[in-house]
Amino acid sequence: MIVQSNLDREFEAIEDVWSPRVIAEANGQYVKIARARGEFVWHAHAAEDEFFLVHRGELVIHYRDGEDVVLGPGDFHVVPRGREHMTEAREECWILMVEPVSTRHTGETESDLTKPVEAQIAHLTDVGR
Amino acid sequence: MIVQSNLDREFEAIEDVWSPRVIAEANGQYVKIARARGEFVWHAHAAEDEFFLVHRGELVIHYRDGEDVVLGPGDFHVVPRGREHMTEAREECWILMVEPVSTRHTGETESDLTKPVEAQIAHLTDVGR
Repeated sequence: MIVQSNLDREFEAIEDVWSPRVIAEANGQYVKIARARGEFVWHAHAAEDEFFLVHRGELVIHYRDGEDVVLGPGDFHVVPRGREHMTEAREECWILMVEPVSTRHTGETESDLTKPVEAQIAHLTDVGR
Repeated sequence: MIVQSNLDREFEAIEDVWSPRVIAEANGQYVKIARARGEFVWHAHAAEDEFFLVHRGELVIHYRDGEDVVLGPGDFHVVPRGREHMTEAREECWILMVEPVSTRHTGETESDLTKPVEAQIAHLTDVGR
């Protein structure tokens, strides 16, 4: 698999909000991107940290047990494992994440927004072609 | 450790080219940034993939056994484990990398450019303050 592409091109290929798209795999981690708009679901990942980088727009990460983190373009943040959080974008926001291949994007929460990982990587054979 | 900062701010804090700066840790991986200019050294990482994303400028990744990969702003690429490569930037280029905590940036090559990981993370206690 040749992994070579462009972030904007990959974001533009995403049809739905809150539907992560895997753009690369390295060392058991996925680099994923997603379009965010509105509220996601409250969830936690018991054993996995999540790195967030905002590419465009503004993302708010609400913590059940702490203050909101507000991220603008170029801002990054790590949500530590085990901390319940909910992401929200008042206007459309484009985010990049790095997390283990095993991470379910809604954590231990099952939701209408939950996308199986197969759907997140379905396009990957076309990457870089 | 609170990890929250901004990419441009972190790039501007780097004094030297080819001197990686760890900006976050998650799941045994470091997210690193570096300013690149000129030629790096030929090296390989036997057991580690390297994810590269160009933030600004243009990076050329030369492969000993294959064609060059040329990355502009927003372009990304994974250098697979074991493949000998050399990065080059004709003009200054700002890059983001994701790789295991264990990865030495010059791989198995010892060079004047080799920076111990302690130097790459020395600033980290100040991140997000």
